[in-house]
Amino acid sequence: MMAAAHEKTLDDLFLNTLKDIYYAEKKILKALPKMAKAARSEQASVAFLKHRDETEVQIQRLEQVFEILGKAPRGKTCDAIEGIIGEGEEIIAEFEESPAIDAGLIAAAQAVEHYEIARYGALKAWAAQLNMKDAVRLLDQTLKEEIKTDELLTKLGMAGANAQAA
Amino acid sequence: MMAAAHEKTLDDLFLNTLKDIYYAEKKILKALPKMAKAARSEQASVAFLKHRDETEVQIQRLEQVFEILGKAPRGKTCDAIEGIIGEGEEIIAEFEESPAIDAGLIAAAQAVEHYEIARYGALKAWAAQLNMKDAVRLLDQTLKEEIKTDELLTKLGMAGANAQAA
Repeated sequence: MMAAAHEKTLDDLFLNTLKDIYYAEKKILKALPKMAKAARSEQASVAFLKHRDETEVQIQRLEQVFEILGKAPRGKTCDAIEGIIGEGEEIIAEFEESPAIDAGLIAAAQAVEHYEIARYGALKAWAAQLNMKDAVRLLDQTLKEEIKTDELLTKLGMAGANAQAA
Repeated sequence: MMAAAHEKTLDDLFLNTLKDIYYAEKKILKALPKMAKAARSEQASVAFLKHRDETEVQIQRLEQVFEILGKAPRGKTCDAIEGIIGEGEEIIAEFEESPAIDAGLIAAAQAVEHYEIARYGALKAWAAQLNMKDAVRLLDQTLKEEIKTDELLTKLGMAGANAQAA
């Protein structure tokens, strides 16, 4: 049963957002191999595939958080990730033949990373507030990976993709 | 005239992304007063309104970048921001009567900030690659403001909104 609006608490917001990012991660899992295929440089392609593998583990961590809550893992349509990934697909369609494709793909992937950083940051803070220590640990592991991936992508842009594109 | 796909370069990607964030900023400008109105705490409300004023200046900076390019400022539908703001509106609809509303609004605003951080980060790196020094300066000013706003929102969550919500 859904709680009435005035009875809704942080637990509801936490579960709501957990479903949102669970849906998002599954979309990202499907998008990354397409991005790897569209990339020109070996480095960008390898980075996308490596993050695909990380995403698989991140999905398992979310499933562990659902388990802590005693809930079956279930996604909830996440319009934000639909929009962000849709823009990445537009970049592929418009720039696939262009030397700027890798710069565009890296930027698209960074928009994905930043969405995840925002969501995992909120979830981790709320889990701490709700005294869910194991969930904090799981969410923090993923948050750190997302931040590291974003930094790696910035370096990849600096290291060559942007110069190649100009 | 549009460049053919294989002729497209970083200039095209830059202009494309500039139009995307210009559209996004205008959407954000309209969303922030609604978020301020929905917030329970004075602090959250004030933070949203302050960022609304900042957004106005950020839009002017983007217009200066269009001018540097010799182009009229024009937005291009940004599905990412539509999705991100749409999720914020869902939070308002579902949690308006709940003590968790401010925690939800703050998280929604941080998703917006992170989208902007990703976009301005890419634009700034590309402007540097394209030797557009004035554009680098303008984009960096906004990027720093977005990072600062995100940090402020994290503190607001920690300072009370999350505790109030639990």
